[in-house]
Amino acid sequence: MVNVSIVGGSGYAGGELLRLLLSHPHVEVKQVTSRSHLGEYVYQVHPNLRKRTQVKFVDPVQLEPVDVLFLALPHGEAQKRINDYSALAPKIIDLSADFRLKDSATYEKWYCQPHAAQEWLGKFVYGLPELHRAEIATVNYTSGVGCNATASNLALLPLVQAGLVDSAAPVIIEIKVGSSESGAKGNAGSHHAERANVIRTFSAFGHRHTAEVIQETGVMNVSLTMTAVDLVRGVLATAHAKVKPGVTTKDLWKAYRAAANENPFIRLVKEQRGIYRVPEPKIIIGSNYADIGFELDEASGHIVSMCAIDNLMKGSSGTAVQCLNLMMGWNEMTGLDFAGLHPL
Amino acid sequence: MVNVSIVGGSGYAGGELLRLLLSHPHVEVKQVTSRSHLGEYVYQVHPNLRKRTQVKFVDPVQLEPVDVLFLALPHGEAQKRINDYSALAPKIIDLSADFRLKDSATYEKWYCQPHAAQEWLGKFVYGLPELHRAEIATVNYTSGVGCNATASNLALLPLVQAGLVDSAAPVIIEIKVGSSESGAKGNAGSHHAERANVIRTFSAFGHRHTAEVIQETGVMNVSLTMTAVDLVRGVLATAHAKVKPGVTTKDLWKAYRAAANENPFIRLVKEQRGIYRVPEPKIIIGSNYADIGFELDEASGHIVSMCAIDNLMKGSSGTAVQCLNLMMGWNEMTGLDFAGLHPL
Amino acid sequence: MVNVSIVGGSGYAGGELLRLLLSHPHVEVKQVTSRSHLGEYVYQVHPNLRKRTQVKFVDPVQLEPVDVLFLALPHGEAQKRINDYSALAPKIIDLSADFRLKDSATYEKWYCQPHAAQEWLGKFVYGLPELHRAEIATVNYTSGVGCNATASNLALLPLVQAGLVDSAAPVIIEIKVGSSESGAKGNAGSHHAERANVIRTFSAFGHRHTAEVIQETGVMNVSLTMTAVDLVRGVLATAHAKVKPGVTTKDLWKAYRAAANENPFIRLVKEQRGIYRVPEPKIIIGSNYADIGFELDEASGHIVSMCAIDNLMKGSSGTAVQCLNLMMGWNEMTGLDFAGLHPL
Amino acid sequence: MVNVSIVGGSGYAGGELLRLLLSHPHVEVKQVTSRSHLGEYVYQVHPNLRKRTQVKFVDPVQLEPVDVLFLALPHGEAQKRINDYSALAPKIIDLSADFRLKDSATYEKWYCQPHAAQEWLGKFVYGLPELHRAEIATVNYTSGVGCNATASNLALLPLVQAGLVDSAAPVIIEIKVGSSESGAKGNAGSHHAERANVIRTFSAFGHRHTAEVIQETGVMNVSLTMTAVDLVRGVLATAHAKVKPGVTTKDLWKAYRAAANENPFIRLVKEQRGIYRVPEPKIIIGSNYADIGFELDEASGHIVSMCAIDNLMKGSSGTAVQCLNLMMGWNEMTGLDFAGLHPL
Repeated sequence: MVNVSIVGGSGYAGGELLRLLLSHPHVEVKQVTSRSHLGEYVYQVHPNLRKRTQVKFVDPVQLEPVDVLFLALPHGEAQKRINDYSALAPKIIDLSADFRLKDSATYEKWYCQPHAAQEWLGKFVYGLPELHRAEIATVNYTSGVGCNATASNLALLPLVQAGLVDSAAPVIIEIKVGSSESGAKGNAGSHHAERANVIRTFSAFGHRHTAEVIQETGVMNVSLTMTAVDLVRGVLATAHAKVKPGVTTKDLWKAYRAAANENPFIRLVKEQRGIYRVPEPKIIIGSNYADIGFELDEASGHIVSMCAIDNLMKGSSGTAVQCLNLMMGWNEMTGLDFAGLHPL
Repeated sequence: MVNVSIVGGSGYAGGELLRLLLSHPHVEVKQVTSRSHLGEYVYQVHPNLRKRTQVKFVDPVQLEPVDVLFLALPHGEAQKRINDYSALAPKIIDLSADFRLKDSATYEKWYCQPHAAQEWLGKFVYGLPELHRAEIATVNYTSGVGCNATASNLALLPLVQAGLVDSAAPVIIEIKVGSSESGAKGNAGSHHAERANVIRTFSAFGHRHTAEVIQETGVMNVSLTMTAVDLVRGVLATAHAKVKPGVTTKDLWKAYRAAANENPFIRLVKEQRGIYRVPEPKIIIGSNYADIGFELDEASGHIVSMCAIDNLMKGSSGTAVQCLNLMMGWNEMTGLDFAGLHPL
Repeated sequence: MVNVSIVGGSGYAGGELLRLLLSHPHVEVKQVTSRSHLGEYVYQVHPNLRKRTQVKFVDPVQLEPVDVLFLALPHGEAQKRINDYSALAPKIIDLSADFRLKDSATYEKWYCQPHAAQEWLGKFVYGLPELHRAEIATVNYTSGVGCNATASNLALLPLVQAGLVDSAAPVIIEIKVGSSESGAKGNAGSHHAERANVIRTFSAFGHRHTAEVIQETGVMNVSLTMTAVDLVRGVLATAHAKVKPGVTTKDLWKAYRAAANENPFIRLVKEQRGIYRVPEPKIIIGSNYADIGFELDEASGHIVSMCAIDNLMKGSSGTAVQCLNLMMGWNEMTGLDFAGLHPL
Repeated sequence: MVNVSIVGGSGYAGGELLRLLLSHPHVEVKQVTSRSHLGEYVYQVHPNLRKRTQVKFVDPVQLEPVDVLFLALPHGEAQKRINDYSALAPKIIDLSADFRLKDSATYEKWYCQPHAAQEWLGKFVYGLPELHRAEIATVNYTSGVGCNATASNLALLPLVQAGLVDSAAPVIIEIKVGSSESGAKGNAGSHHAERANVIRTFSAFGHRHTAEVIQETGVMNVSLTMTAVDLVRGVLATAHAKVKPGVTTKDLWKAYRAAANENPFIRLVKEQRGIYRVPEPKIIIGSNYADIGFELDEASGHIVSMCAIDNLMKGSSGTAVQCLNLMMGWNEMTGLDFAGLHPL
């Protein structure tokens, strides 16, 4: 058994991670920290864990050395103490945005402040196995992924890997998200009476996850437009791009099938009948799957590529556990076998 | 035109009241107060009122004399300054709980503090026209109604008025409510990610509105059990009572029809076919209707009586405007003619 | 009073139209037809109309002459009998898609069948007052509008009228819709357990309403991508276009303000603070407003223009009543004064 | 590995069962039948199972002998062919209502038709392990459980087992349910536009599951009142009963703790702080837990006892797998370790 601890376990990503690690066959959870819920049972904050564990939240200063340390802190926190954390564990998986971007200037541009541990940026691998599987298996430090970035990157993955995108044309990614994306701390706009029944395009341009999409896909001319809908979990990215001249639907089938074949958590959904013909978050909530699909307008070369994920699973904690599996040499799918529910 | 002002206009009841009064053919809205939103346009808080009015929130100290003053303050506030308010207007309609109960001891029992203006309790009429229509037409001070109390009182109204209830048996009222009942100020539990998808029996006993049901129906042995569901507006009260020996379904039809005939906003819903066979808040959102219905188990005398309302309309601001109409001698339905939407 | 009848009154658009006409101060509803609900009270199908009318559904063959005939039939039906209907009333407003497109070849291309009454296409004006106000006031035949087309056309309206769009770049319109768009007759995919919680991009290209957008805006290179979300009513169109070189945010403010000033039901929503900063269907359900807004990325010229409507109001029946008002010389807003609800 | 097949695998209970059995470590799924989806991959109907299995639906006549046969047919079907099915497998678990009731007259009373295989009624054990654990471990035939009956039976379990209920007083159980309860075949009322946003008390008395509650708890004077809410999965039973004179809150704590201690899937939820103080289906969707809790009004003896379950798990397929585990001598929790999600 490998010992792991979670720093920052009272948020949604931390709770989801804890749920996964408590059921992981090769892992023992040693400590979970939370300053605001110090001394409480973790199930008082994450009520689904009642009768699953008697672990209580401890103060970060009480952290003991472990094999793997997960950081699930608010953005900007991990970079301040990364030296301390690295002294506690040989391997670190950080779920925040702190070590996702390789370039400190890019970080400063998108996060509007200088990075506090620039020397660490190069030590972390961007933790999306579908892009960096081999490398993740060899390193000690893996960053988390942005949920919207992940939906975007996986929507573009087959196109980029097969070199089918016309890079001169802009790529417009429309992303629809649920309320859990905004975190466990509510605000005025997250009050149920204000947040229910919305279709709210809250960010037309400039979402920070754009930086991860540019870095990981190499597509420079890309924009993310964010729309909140009445759902707790789930993200759908609907990406509009232009394929290179001559690219056919058949070429696309080949590229998408390859992506699904090479990645255990990617599924191609493109059906001619039935209710579920396209990727939808509805049926993958709780699972680590990323469902992808596409439609091509051959006349114009306009492709609509879709990717559906659970933001707290494939978009965050599920992928972090997938990275753990790779870093430890375990089967990539260990502890991530939940199928999702139908109906939900 | 009659001049009215609203004290405390930034909450949900205040906003709904403002919406109704702005469209009322005989009324002119003079001032709306809010300390927290001082100087803002009312449509910045109540976005549905954009392009409907250029009124801005003012400080309560700026209030000028008007014909009718509406008080839509948090519970406990109106009683502190009722003398001041009464100097500003000959007629007052208070939406809060402050002047609903006639007995100061009862008030103290349910609200856990002494009443600050006991001499005023007797001056207010309980503002439910279905129970006090004639009296409301003659007085200057009308209290608001509790939303859950109203759903309960109207569910019991036909039974009580026809004297059909067995008063020895307990009356159990199960009430399902949406999130707008908890007001415009959110809390940890009203965060969308926590509040969505709930069926949460948050209060088994002791809801304060019980006091209004006891006072207004005379049924002493009554309990209200509150369950939150995933909805913004709407209340359904499902009341379980026992009818007196010998009471038949026919007797009940007669009593319920009488209630619907005597009250313009009460409708009897009891269909044998179609989708909408029973009272449902879904189709009366935004309207002032109270839909009632019943089922009787003749063998046991167990009756299930239902009442569906919009908590912000018939359960609060709609009824307040209905009282205004009666107090001014206008048609009871003036400004309250919205039918509700289907589907919604 | 003007006499009107509705042909095809059991669907959602027919029901909404009936609700509006029953409350319209200058109108008397004579007859409503429905073959499938023959002899039933209209409130048995549209339960919000209980206690509002005792009208029953009649057979179309029973139709008597009236001043204005509304047609709310399934697409393809009105064109088959338009000669019969025109014998019954001097003025006709057709809510279906049958007379929206001016060119019969275009109709055939998008609806995959020849038009059955081509000689009538030229007699109808496209019934969107924001585009054809003056003309509608002079004609006897007005077509309805497509709900998604209306959200799209109004999102583009300020840009098109001010000539700000770069017509060489493609216009991509992402449209999010509720379940009432699919009509009152359900299908396998509209079963609540399958339809709830969805974010389902059910049509990437080729939605029929595209034809109306091309015809009415003159933008040839436009695509509509449709995504279903968990909502009953409401449409948000998020349109991505490119502005001409040199166009600034200030130019856009001017164009959007002009659209809002010239059209009583258009509101510009672009706030820097508060919860409601962008157009949202949530707060206009039941109202005839179309809320518009925009964001410009000045560096790239990429504009995101939004329009939120209630698909059954501004996207269908509300606009039809607005046309009636114009055709009769009444105030454009008559009978359409509902403000929408907050919260909902 | 034990071979199992599912008869009737295209419904919601069948699909959930299939999901569980595909992940069960000791089970191999041989065949799944469906007449209406003959020849289709199971994942075309249950899209969450894509990439989990290549099993296709077969005709029931193709069924081969297996170790355990699960029947997930519509009510009334299993009894017609139980002799055929019993020839195919030594052990049968039937999810339908056909073999739940021990008395054929009771069956006929509640299901309004004579039972077609009365000789089999005595061979089946009622498959709720919390009531019949020891017996289930020794038999070959286990019935399924009604979802509403299970929520009711487990809400009453601690009271009944400890003998705390006053049997002279009526027990009123208010049950709130999601749309998946009505099955995969929709009807007019399950159309999303009609079913969303409802609080619909669709059955005041006489729900068939009442028979199971009477049989299993021995409480004769019990009624179930059913209210549909806007949710896909989840049931909350809120039971109103009267405790015997002298019963205290302390007695109840003891009884509820005992129930939770003796049953691995029962959890007691009764918190003084935090958001999740009472049992809620929201956090147990997908899990096999039944969360129970209570409130006592000591003055009147009125107890409100709650039980939350996922209707497709603990209320149906999850409990069926739990029975399989017991019948095979495996750990009761095998293959049922999903914790539920927070938030959802």
